[in-house]
Amino acid sequence: MKIISNPFELKEYLHANKSIGFQENQSIGFVPTMGALHEGHISLIKKAKEQNELVVVSIFLNPTQFLKGEDLDKYPKKEVADTKLCQLSGVDVLFFPNVNDIYTQDEVSVLAPKVRGFVLEGESRPGHFNGVLTVVMKLLNIVNPTRAYFGKKDAQQLNLISLMVKQFFMSVEIVAVDTVREKDGLALSSRNAFLTKEEREEALKIATSLRNATAMVMRGVLDSKEITSNMREILAPLHIFYVEILNRNFNQLSHVEIGNTIILVEVRVGTTRLLDNIWL
Amino acid sequence: MKIISNPFELKEYLHANKSIGFQENQSIGFVPTMGALHEGHISLIKKAKEQNELVVVSIFLNPTQFLKGEDLDKYPKKEVADTKLCQLSGVDVLFFPNVNDIYTQDEVSVLAPKVRGFVLEGESRPGHFNGVLTVVMKLLNIVNPTRAYFGKKDAQQLNLISLMVKQFFMSVEIVAVDTVREKDGLALSSRNAFLTKEEREEALKIATSLRNATAMVMRGVLDSKEITSNMREILAPLHIFYVEILNRNFNQLSHVEIGNTIILVEVRVGTTRLLDNIWL
Repeated sequence: MKIISNPFELKEYLHANKSIGFQENQSIGFVPTMGALHEGHISLIKKAKEQNELVVVSIFLNPTQFLKGEDLDKYPKKEVADTKLCQLSGVDVLFFPNVNDIYTQDEVSVLAPKVRGFVLEGESRPGHFNGVLTVVMKLLNIVNPTRAYFGKKDAQQLNLISLMVKQFFMSVEIVAVDTVREKDGLALSSRNAFLTKEEREEALKIATSLRNATAMVMRGVLDSKEITSNMREILAPLHIFYVEILNRNFNQLSHVEIGNTIILVEVRVGTTRLLDNIWL
Repeated sequence: MKIISNPFELKEYLHANKSIGFQENQSIGFVPTMGALHEGHISLIKKAKEQNELVVVSIFLNPTQFLKGEDLDKYPKKEVADTKLCQLSGVDVLFFPNVNDIYTQDEVSVLAPKVRGFVLEGESRPGHFNGVLTVVMKLLNIVNPTRAYFGKKDAQQLNLISLMVKQFFMSVEIVAVDTVREKDGLALSSRNAFLTKEEREEALKIATSLRNATAMVMRGVLDSKEITSNMREILAPLHIFYVEILNRNFNQLSHVEIGNTIILVEVRVGTTRLLDNIWL
């Protein structure tokens, strides 16, 4: 596994693909991460390996997507373990840039859509998605992959990145990968490391609420209000940022449309923000 | 000359380059314009033809770079003459999209740098450069050229586009092309069409002030204040937006540095905003 920190060196390396036995018409799969890798990331890498000849993973804890006072400084860092995991997963190139490789002063940036970028997680974290889109645009331009892999767990992020790629005519296919869960249903997240034992127990309410919503839909209950109020009961007394039933374009639905629905939850457990969703 | 209005069709067409006798390793030169083509644009196209195998010109009157109340509606439109001029200039592909081909609702956009995008022209037209950078990013992604050509007359635009390309690791070379002038020195601009005969006479003060500044520098006067106050005297009584002496990175200079200086002027003549500059 090749490890590169300089964006221009990576661009050059991927361009000079013949030197690494990689042909012009072969495909590059790209998995951007913020490190603290877990099984969720591994499933993205596996998918990328299935679908492409070469797999590039980036590890970059992107400061611009954290608001002031958020957990940037305490976000888990596991450089050695992450590198090992990438190696074991068969990653070809690990891109591990420093902040100064990616950002300078007084920069051009990407602005999330005025509506869709500032609802749900964007409402409680205004500007968060500007940082996400800015870094993803940079990373996609550096790697120039055939396909890029994002988890469905961050559904709004996935939606906004897909919008950006379409609206900016970018030549990459965005691949959505299913959420990986613990046996008891908790969605994997690097932030789970912050949970105390008691908080982890509380956090199970998120998956329970989504499982319950799914069961209701299976029973024929499609009314969004009925489903979300049931979910809110299950989630209480956690602080709820939102419980929403949207179509795959992120427009509100008064009734679940099977095959075109995402039910999304974001709550705070202790001081940790956790989100999850289910695609029906 | 092929004329294409759909961005995806253009992308496809340029990708399927073999069908147009164009090889993978050959270069594409791109000249983005807002139409109302004049000799300034022709010089960009000529340069592009010199340096590339294939030349693409776009004509798109970009609404997002006009502020409310600005001259979007009365901006000169000359579709037939423009098309003819492109043909005569040997353009290979003319990209002529409609607004709906480029923009949808609630979009991701590009934000100019907080400082450098909101001084000079950006100060009197806040948000103007957001629109410029957004459309240029889109156009560059659609055409994916080897080189893109911009006039030095719009020096701040050129500077910000160069910054964007660098900061977003875009694979295109930005080529700066010298300003074309009328015999009496007036810099060519589509907006010159708005000038009455008297205003056109007044507008010559811009070139005179720049010529005078150059003469001062040649005489060894390098002090920025001395030069700009002399220029302001020449420009009076025109409304002056700014007279600035900057280095090529757009930082203010207290003294002219030969080989690294741009002297910039923007004034209003009648109701028409005119800008010009000289690179020393």
